[in-house]
Amino acid sequence: MPKTQFIVEPGAQQVVMTRDFNAPRELVFRVLTDPELIGKWWGPSDLTTDIQQMEMREGGAWRFVQRDKDGNDFAFHGIYHVVDAPRQVVQTFEFDGLPERHVLLETLDLDEKNGVTTLTQTSVYQSVADRDGMVAMGMESGATESLERLDALLQSQRVDS
Amino acid sequence: MPKTQFIVEPGAQQVVMTRDFNAPRELVFRVLTDPELIGKWWGPSDLTTDIQQMEMREGGAWRFVQRDKDGNDFAFHGIYHVVDAPRQVVQTFEFDGLPERHVLLETLDLDEKNGVTTLTQTSVYQSVADRDGMVAMGMESGATESLERLDALLQSQRVDS
Repeated sequence: MPKTQFIVEPGAQQVVMTRDFNAPRELVFRVLTDPELIGKWWGPSDLTTDIQQMEMREGGAWRFVQRDKDGNDFAFHGIYHVVDAPRQVVQTFEFDGLPERHVLLETLDLDEKNGVTTLTQTSVYQSVADRDGMVAMGMESGATESLERLDALLQSQRVDS
Repeated sequence: MPKTQFIVEPGAQQVVMTRDFNAPRELVFRVLTDPELIGKWWGPSDLTTDIQQMEMREGGAWRFVQRDKDGNDFAFHGIYHVVDAPRQVVQTFEFDGLPERHVLLETLDLDEKNGVTTLTQTSVYQSVADRDGMVAMGMESGATESLERLDALLQSQRVDS
């Protein structure tokens, strides 16, 4: 199975995540951006995801709320800046549960070669401390689980289509 | 006169710019965000600035077009993410004249102490190469000129008010 890789350089203020998928780029983009499918891969599998907003256009807002089995909510939101299907999405990302605002800029690039699509997500933080804090909170394991769920979903979509 | 300072660390993907103004924070924020006044301080003084959009709310767009005396246009645009008067603005920033999209995330913080307001603008780029390219294009001298014009404008506003 392809592995998710992270580049977290000391002192840098970004995290670069890459993963290959055995699927064409159009399909990967479609599954990544389909609000009906977000809940099937976004975040840990033991949480439900409610898509409250997902306006995929420049300046459009997105807001996803996850809920655990005890009813605790975790809300995330941001704004789309670039939506260039099936090549790129640039958006901001925030977690609502922090006392101060911390905004990151995420660039998602999809590149296809010989039927394999490479997803590269570059998350740029307002500071190195913000980046280090997010890494310390375990973002790598959370993101890895999301991409593993996405991979499984893509394989099922290939069978369906 | 207070000086504009830049922190451009080798290998980092941000530029931090700071400058003190002898003016209260409320006034600095008001002048910075008044579309009627943008043209009086934003960019080089030998260009005119046309404010085509300036929707100062989360998800709102901004678009400024500068024109030189030969009629050449230079367009800039972005999206507001955080508007927290008079403390902070977080927005994206793009120059339209590039073949590829290059988005930066700008955080503008205003902090007042003893009647002096410190402006700190942190511009985070999608890559170190993007940052280095912008610095090589002379962004420091352009930004310094803007803040000197802003300073002069603030002094005139203090006399007016």
